[in-house]
Amino acid sequence: MTKVVFLGQSSDIPKLVVQARAQYPHLQVYTEDEPGARDAEVAACWRPAHGALARFPKLRLIHAIAAGVDNILEDPALPPLPICRVVAPDLTEGMTEFILWSVLLFHRNLDQVLTNQRRRQWQRVDQEPAASRSVGILGLGTLGTHAARTLAQHGYQVRGWSRQAKQIANVRSYAGADQLDEFLAGTDILVCLLPLTDETRGILDRRLLGKLPRGAALVHCGRGGHLVSQDVLALVREGHLRGAVLDVFEVEPLDTASPLWDEPNIFVTPHIASANSITSILDQISENIRRLQADEPLQNLVDAQKGY
Amino acid sequence: MTKVVFLGQSSDIPKLVVQARAQYPHLQVYTEDEPGARDAEVAACWRPAHGALARFPKLRLIHAIAAGVDNILEDPALPPLPICRVVAPDLTEGMTEFILWSVLLFHRNLDQVLTNQRRRQWQRVDQEPAASRSVGILGLGTLGTHAARTLAQHGYQVRGWSRQAKQIANVRSYAGADQLDEFLAGTDILVCLLPLTDETRGILDRRLLGKLPRGAALVHCGRGGHLVSQDVLALVREGHLRGAVLDVFEVEPLDTASPLWDEPNIFVTPHIASANSITSILDQISENIRRLQADEPLQNLVDAQKGY
Repeated sequence: MTKVVFLGQSSDIPKLVVQARAQYPHLQVYTEDEPGARDAEVAACWRPAHGALARFPKLRLIHAIAAGVDNILEDPALPPLPICRVVAPDLTEGMTEFILWSVLLFHRNLDQVLTNQRRRQWQRVDQEPAASRSVGILGLGTLGTHAARTLAQHGYQVRGWSRQAKQIANVRSYAGADQLDEFLAGTDILVCLLPLTDETRGILDRRLLGKLPRGAALVHCGRGGHLVSQDVLALVREGHLRGAVLDVFEVEPLDTASPLWDEPNIFVTPHIASANSITSILDQISENIRRLQADEPLQNLVDAQKGY
Repeated sequence: MTKVVFLGQSSDIPKLVVQARAQYPHLQVYTEDEPGARDAEVAACWRPAHGALARFPKLRLIHAIAAGVDNILEDPALPPLPICRVVAPDLTEGMTEFILWSVLLFHRNLDQVLTNQRRRQWQRVDQEPAASRSVGILGLGTLGTHAARTLAQHGYQVRGWSRQAKQIANVRSYAGADQLDEFLAGTDILVCLLPLTDETRGILDRRLLGKLPRGAALVHCGRGGHLVSQDVLALVREGHLRGAVLDVFEVEPLDTASPLWDEPNIFVTPHIASANSITSILDQISENIRRLQADEPLQNLVDAQKGY
C-alpha cells in the first residue's frame, strides 16, 4: 500500500480522489488535510500552494496530473524530488484534433466564412490544397511530434522548431535560436506547443510574431504564460496576423472585459484543446508508483533544469 | 484536333476556356456562341440551359466540369450521349477536409465554444475521445468512401449507407431502404454525400432526420436539392438536432432573408466544401477526350438510369 496525497487547485482533484479510491485498492489515497496524508510517499498535484509539497517529509515522487509542470516548478520550497507528468494517448490525440480543426479553419478560409455568416454574406472563398500551406510547430515534444505527423499526412508542408533538431518523416526540423527566424519566415500557420520555461515565457509577442509573413495565423495551445495577448490583438488589428485561435491565456478564465472576446478574427477557446481523462491520469500515476516501488525507471520524468 | 464547346452557368467556365486554350493546343476550344462551336464533338458544361446541348449535332460526349450531373440530366432535350463527370483527387481531399472540420466542430463541442464566445462566456466543454462518436455517411461513392476511411483513421466509429453494400475497412456498411432506419438510429453525426436523383430529392427532411437520435448533428455537403431547410431549422430549434453545417441549399446563393443565417447552431457555408481546380478539371476532360478518340473506356462515366 503506497500512500498518495492529491492536492492543488484543479476541479479534477476531487474526481481523481473518488476514482482512485474506487479503482486502485493498492493505493492509500488522501486529500491534503486528511489525517495520515503527512506520511504520503507520492504527491499527485496541480498548481499546489507554494510550500504545500514541503509539508510531506516522506515524499519520494511528485506527479503532475497533466503535461505542464511549470506550476509545480514555480514553488520556491519545492522539495528536490523526481517530478513526473502525464502524457497520455488521449491527451495527444485530443491535442492533434484541436490543432487539425484550427489549421483547417485557416487553410480552408472558414474563419472568413464564419465572419461572413454574421453579416448574412454569401461569398465563395478560395480553395487551395493543403500542400499550399506551411504549418510551423513551435515545440516538438510528444504533442508536437504527433500533431506534425498528422498534419503531414493530411498534405500540409510541416516544419517544427525545437531546442535540438528532430528527425520526423516529412517534417522539416529547425533547432535553436539561430534557426528561429528562418523557421518563422516560412510559416503560414504557427502552432505553439512549447513548454513554459524562463526562456519561453512571453515568447508569443510582437517581436517573434512580427517575423511571420504578413497574413499568417496563430494557433496557441501551449501555456498561458507564452502569450502576450496585447501584442496578438494589435497584430491582428493591423492585419499582420490574419487571425488566431487562442486556447490558453495569461490569466484564466479570460476576463469578461477582455477585448479578445469581440475581435472577429480571434477565436477564444476556454483551455479545452486537450485534457487527460481521469482514467488515463490514474493509469499513468499508478504505473509510475509501481515503477517507483520496483525501482524501475519512471515514465515522463521531468528534467528540472530544462523545465519539462 | 477535337472541337470542344464550354457552356453553362458557372464562373469557372471563362477560366476553363482561357486555360484550355493556353495549355491544350490539341483541343479546339469554343464558347457557346462562337462560330465553329456548332461542330463541337465534346461539350464541357455546368447547368446548361435546357435545350442548349441539343443545338450541337456532332456531339459525341457530354462532360460535366464537376461531380454532380443532376443539372445536366434535368434537360428535357438532353441528347442520348455518354455523360462523364469530374472526380479529381483534389475534390476528394477537399471534401474530406471539410467533413473532418465539421465533424470535429461537433465532436469537440466547438459549436458551443463559438456560441459562448459571442456571450463572452468561459465555459469548459467535455472532451470525449473520437471513438465515442458515431459518424454516419449517406452515400459511399468516391467522396463518401474517402471521407469514411479518413474518419475511421481518426478513431471515429464510422458507418455508411448506400444503395448496395460496400466493403470498406473499419466502416460498417448499411444498404437499401430496409437498413436506413437502423443506420440512422446509431448515427451521432450524419454526413450527406448522396447524388441528387429522383429518389434522394428532399431526403433531408423531418421524416429522415427525425430518425436520428436526439442531439445528433447534420453535415450537409451533398446537393441543394436534398435539403428541406425548413425542417432542419425546426428540428434544430426543437433541440432534436444539436446543429448543422450546411454547405448547399435549395436556392443558391442563400437568400439574405433566410432565418438560417442567424440560427446559432446552424453554420452556413457558401458551397465551398470542395471544388476541383481548373487544372484538374481540364486534365480529366482532356484524358476522356483522348479515350474517346482512341475508343478506350471513358473515366467517371455516369449511369443515366441511376443518375450518377
